[in-house]
Amino acid sequence: VKQLRAAILGASGYAGGELIGILARHSFVTLDRVFAQSSAGALVSDIHPRAEQNGRTFEAYSGTENLEAEICFLALPHGEAMEIAPALLDAGKLVIDLSGDHRLKDAALFLQYYQRPQTSQQILQHAVYGLPEWSCEAIRNARLIANPGCYATSAILPLAPLLVDRLIDPTSIVINSMSGVSGAGRKAAVDYSFVEINETVKAYRVGDHQHIPEIETVLSNLSSQNVQITFIPHLIPITRGIYTTICANISCDVSFDQLAGSFETHYAGKPFVRFHRERIPEIRRVTGTNFIDIGLRYLPERKQVIVISAEDNLIKGAAGQAVQNMNIACGFPEKEGIV
Amino acid sequence: VKQLRAAILGASGYAGGELIGILARHSFVTLDRVFAQSSAGALVSDIHPRAEQNGRTFEAYSGTENLEAEICFLALPHGEAMEIAPALLDAGKLVIDLSGDHRLKDAALFLQYYQRPQTSQQILQHAVYGLPEWSCEAIRNARLIANPGCYATSAILPLAPLLVDRLIDPTSIVINSMSGVSGAGRKAAVDYSFVEINETVKAYRVGDHQHIPEIETVLSNLSSQNVQITFIPHLIPITRGIYTTICANISCDVSFDQLAGSFETHYAGKPFVRFHRERIPEIRRVTGTNFIDIGLRYLPERKQVIVISAEDNLIKGAAGQAVQNMNIACGFPEKEGIV
Amino acid sequence: VKQLRAAILGASGYAGGELIGILARHSFVTLDRVFAQSSAGALVSDIHPRAEQNGRTFEAYSGTENLEAEICFLALPHGEAMEIAPALLDAGKLVIDLSGDHRLKDAALFLQYYQRPQTSQQILQHAVYGLPEWSCEAIRNARLIANPGCYATSAILPLAPLLVDRLIDPTSIVINSMSGVSGAGRKAAVDYSFVEINETVKAYRVGDHQHIPEIETVLSNLSSQNVQITFIPHLIPITRGIYTTICANISCDVSFDQLAGSFETHYAGKPFVRFHRERIPEIRRVTGTNFIDIGLRYLPERKQVIVISAEDNLIKGAAGQAVQNMNIACGFPEKEGIV
Amino acid sequence: VKQLRAAILGASGYAGGELIGILARHSFVTLDRVFAQSSAGALVSDIHPRAEQNGRTFEAYSGTENLEAEICFLALPHGEAMEIAPALLDAGKLVIDLSGDHRLKDAALFLQYYQRPQTSQQILQHAVYGLPEWSCEAIRNARLIANPGCYATSAILPLAPLLVDRLIDPTSIVINSMSGVSGAGRKAAVDYSFVEINETVKAYRVGDHQHIPEIETVLSNLSSQNVQITFIPHLIPITRGIYTTICANISCDVSFDQLAGSFETHYAGKPFVRFHRERIPEIRRVTGTNFIDIGLRYLPERKQVIVISAEDNLIKGAAGQAVQNMNIACGFPEKEGIV
Repeated sequence: VKQLRAAILGASGYAGGELIGILARHSFVTLDRVFAQSSAGALVSDIHPRAEQNGRTFEAYSGTENLEAEICFLALPHGEAMEIAPALLDAGKLVIDLSGDHRLKDAALFLQYYQRPQTSQQILQHAVYGLPEWSCEAIRNARLIANPGCYATSAILPLAPLLVDRLIDPTSIVINSMSGVSGAGRKAAVDYSFVEINETVKAYRVGDHQHIPEIETVLSNLSSQNVQITFIPHLIPITRGIYTTICANISCDVSFDQLAGSFETHYAGKPFVRFHRERIPEIRRVTGTNFIDIGLRYLPERKQVIVISAEDNLIKGAAGQAVQNMNIACGFPEKEGIV
Repeated sequence: VKQLRAAILGASGYAGGELIGILARHSFVTLDRVFAQSSAGALVSDIHPRAEQNGRTFEAYSGTENLEAEICFLALPHGEAMEIAPALLDAGKLVIDLSGDHRLKDAALFLQYYQRPQTSQQILQHAVYGLPEWSCEAIRNARLIANPGCYATSAILPLAPLLVDRLIDPTSIVINSMSGVSGAGRKAAVDYSFVEINETVKAYRVGDHQHIPEIETVLSNLSSQNVQITFIPHLIPITRGIYTTICANISCDVSFDQLAGSFETHYAGKPFVRFHRERIPEIRRVTGTNFIDIGLRYLPERKQVIVISAEDNLIKGAAGQAVQNMNIACGFPEKEGIV
Repeated sequence: VKQLRAAILGASGYAGGELIGILARHSFVTLDRVFAQSSAGALVSDIHPRAEQNGRTFEAYSGTENLEAEICFLALPHGEAMEIAPALLDAGKLVIDLSGDHRLKDAALFLQYYQRPQTSQQILQHAVYGLPEWSCEAIRNARLIANPGCYATSAILPLAPLLVDRLIDPTSIVINSMSGVSGAGRKAAVDYSFVEINETVKAYRVGDHQHIPEIETVLSNLSSQNVQITFIPHLIPITRGIYTTICANISCDVSFDQLAGSFETHYAGKPFVRFHRERIPEIRRVTGTNFIDIGLRYLPERKQVIVISAEDNLIKGAAGQAVQNMNIACGFPEKEGIV
Repeated sequence: VKQLRAAILGASGYAGGELIGILARHSFVTLDRVFAQSSAGALVSDIHPRAEQNGRTFEAYSGTENLEAEICFLALPHGEAMEIAPALLDAGKLVIDLSGDHRLKDAALFLQYYQRPQTSQQILQHAVYGLPEWSCEAIRNARLIANPGCYATSAILPLAPLLVDRLIDPTSIVINSMSGVSGAGRKAAVDYSFVEINETVKAYRVGDHQHIPEIETVLSNLSSQNVQITFIPHLIPITRGIYTTICANISCDVSFDQLAGSFETHYAGKPFVRFHRERIPEIRRVTGTNFIDIGLRYLPERKQVIVISAEDNLIKGAAGQAVQNMNIACGFPEKEGIV
């Protein structure tokens, strides 16, 4: 495998910082260019002190000319990635988009949940939803990978086995998620200031979060049935991590062994999914890693299952999964750089 | 109204500390005695620096002899309150029990969820479940008040109006709660040390928490139907506060106005319940107060309601509600000492 | 004592919120007007949920006309208070300025440390530095009270007795302070966002903080000698509280009893200073109160004393002390509203 | 360089967990045995989830027989390491002691500050104080390495250049440190519970902390003069990190360039010390790394320097430095495993 070059666009955010750190440890990829419009000229190490030791500065991105990198990570705000992706694809780059711009193929859903039109329609056909545990083959052949949302990852991975195996009612699903504040991005806002976040909890975008159609579409496609969910995200005073607690009705007579077996079968050999029959996940067990931990409880008298996941929102929920996708698309070992 | 005297048993815990502070501000009650077995002899201000300025020390409790207080708050661990309550009642005291010992009338449920037999069976008949917004009349005549659990309060108050008005399916209820660490009490345990709690989240006692039968029994009684719930508590890194997010299926064609109206009608004139049609509750809005804030979202396409509550677990979830109960039982203004 | 009316200018900040809460509990003052330019029209309870229950909105301030309040609290940014104070004084108001605008009489020092000229020079003569424990008489007759800085309060109160009694070398003083983030005000800035503050510590403005000349001037005046300090403030991940650790060389042969006696003598009868011979202060012991706790250690072999203080930066360091000053100036009991 | 085997005694603590994680990444060392008396039989991954993926369990240590590891890390409580070290040395092991047992050669000082007699007197002669930036040669030949204390490291590295170059008065040094709670170890105690630590600060062991004689002895030896310090440690609500702010008087006419040059000269080529002329250190810049960041301010009018350091107490303050010492003693690259 030859050494490839990577560029990051939108590298001053928290996911960008994680990408820089991971690529610095990668054996087969060199981080070639680091773009961040608003921080152009600033030292990378000033903003991401633990990710970068090389005295590099952020650059302003000005197009594909002179861009030698074969792989481009887009860690841009929603709406900006779709402006930039087409030219990168034309120039033959492998594009891994960490924004939401290429996750929804349905333009009407995109407009409804992202409040902007989809301008990248013609390349959207070729976008592959990059969930490595379920789309490995498609990722291998992709040129444009839509990296899954952080909440979406934390909900899809614990639900997919049970839905694919038809063990739960696909319309009975209630998902409660708690996210660390880094999920909101690196930004100046009173609402995300320490004093306003510390010692409190708040639900937000109840019933209209943009990850709802993403979760429903992906799970419907994977399980060939119409999946509908209720999703309630909460902001809690931690820096990183997502904790997702899911409740669903079972759809048939089933034992705990069958439910647990569904996870064990589907995730056999998947290096970043750790299913545990007894242990309840905790965020601290996955912080700083690309693991997602999944736990299971069965309440037979309620005919319900509780599935719980914990992930690092910036790693398995963003940069780690992006590199996992790159590893698969480029033929590198899946765990390279992210263990 | 004449000045009464109060005693607290188990005063060294966090709820005990809140009780001390509230009673110090109360116009009609004097805090007479402060008992704490394991801290007997210690300065109250050493353990509760903000609650007590009077140089008082904790005493070891040795029975009702020489106990002049007319009102006794039991802030004892489960299992200890039922040992002590009968003698206090015999001595003519008003007993307000903050433990779980007198909340469940069903001895089998008590044994199952508290892992100990109910030894206080003969006085249990007379125990009144002290939820002021729903049992004001009974509280007025009570001699033994079972103060509701912190999680139970946070779930019953947002659910009762909708169940009483038959607007939701009583078997479809899924409750996710997040609690601050003070809910676990003041204790030496690695699991509650700063390092193990900070920057993480963990669900616990999924499906077998002792507040499940409490919530089901109270809501079933209030609404005269068989209510069954799924309840998942989580521990999060804040000191105080409970955030509860509830999802339920509507049971009939209903509008947002009808749902909101149910809260507005039932809680009209209730000084500590703040229902808001638009605003999503936040813990910081209620910290240090006896308020419970309730918010509502209606998802008609899912035929579901989301009801969200925020309370201070040590006040509305414990000491504040206990004083609210005392105020009602003693004929004081309901808000005395707790606004 | 007749009921007076108060107005707050700059009421949307954290100190403003505390003022609202304290004045709501005050027996002799009614909060008449609540001004906040940038939040004009917003509900007070949206920004300060625990301080205000009355459905009041912030107003834009437009001058003294129609301003009936006899007392005006200025909780404005530095530079704005001195623009507004003269007209308020002309209109006969008692002005209590929580900003730094009227603390330094020396225009050159003001320019150096506040980076703006002093435009309020003519009224500055009449400004009284409002440290109640040391300037009670002057406060009683003041019309313009410069409320001390939060760091300054935390350093002056532990140092003044030892300097006045000539027990320490006035040029040997090293002050390290740690402040909660509310001290930086309620503002939108990446530097104060949760993610950038959580799990870290940072010193700032080492050697050039604007409280340095305030501390030096006040202590020099009180002790009639030239006091020079080194002051290093740190930002730590707590919401409120200042912890100040001071090291100084003793100036003569002295015993622990003499050192402790200095505090006990000077602060006898001062209701908000708690000196303790053994106990080391902790922020949590004073949070939410107007107390400042002071502890003392003597290292005879090093010929040094360590004095440590803890205060709530928003109360004794701002709003509580401002009300304490008002109480004295208006002849109310010193503790009214702030116990 | 051949592959060596390592054992950790006391592996269930926080420093032990870091050691496990670092050694797992080490190219020339295999972690052979993992001992922890009180947790014997427990899964390592249950206690250190991010350090260990191999299904290994803790063992009870029962002596050197059958202990094949050539290198033994002692992450034991003070007092236990000196009981065990002699036999390990007799068996020819390289011993790296993270406790304080072998740091002080003076038995009287040890008794005074550790409140127990030094029982390991005969091997103490051969103990090398393992501060790699200053004792590289001695470490290379050591068989027993006393790994420096976390506070001591954070104070010695910023002071040594200025003292060795005779730029500051060796008796004028005042050190204020703030430590994360992991420094207190993994233990069940109310004082370290989340509720008691969150939102507060507390100084402790003012003037009698056991790192005082360690700092004074090491700096006196390095600079061949009698160094005396004042040291005040504080506990703050973060999990990991130490922030140390030092104030000292200059001993001669000196420029900022000379002061900065002292650091730049002494730490040229030292991979884990980052001195920066402008930037003030922040804990978050070093968390999870073996770096210590050092910043400098010169206050010529006060004739003082302020030197500030930030380190991760569990890495440069414990496990990382221990591995750095091992790397030097074993002839591995200094940065192996810890970058």
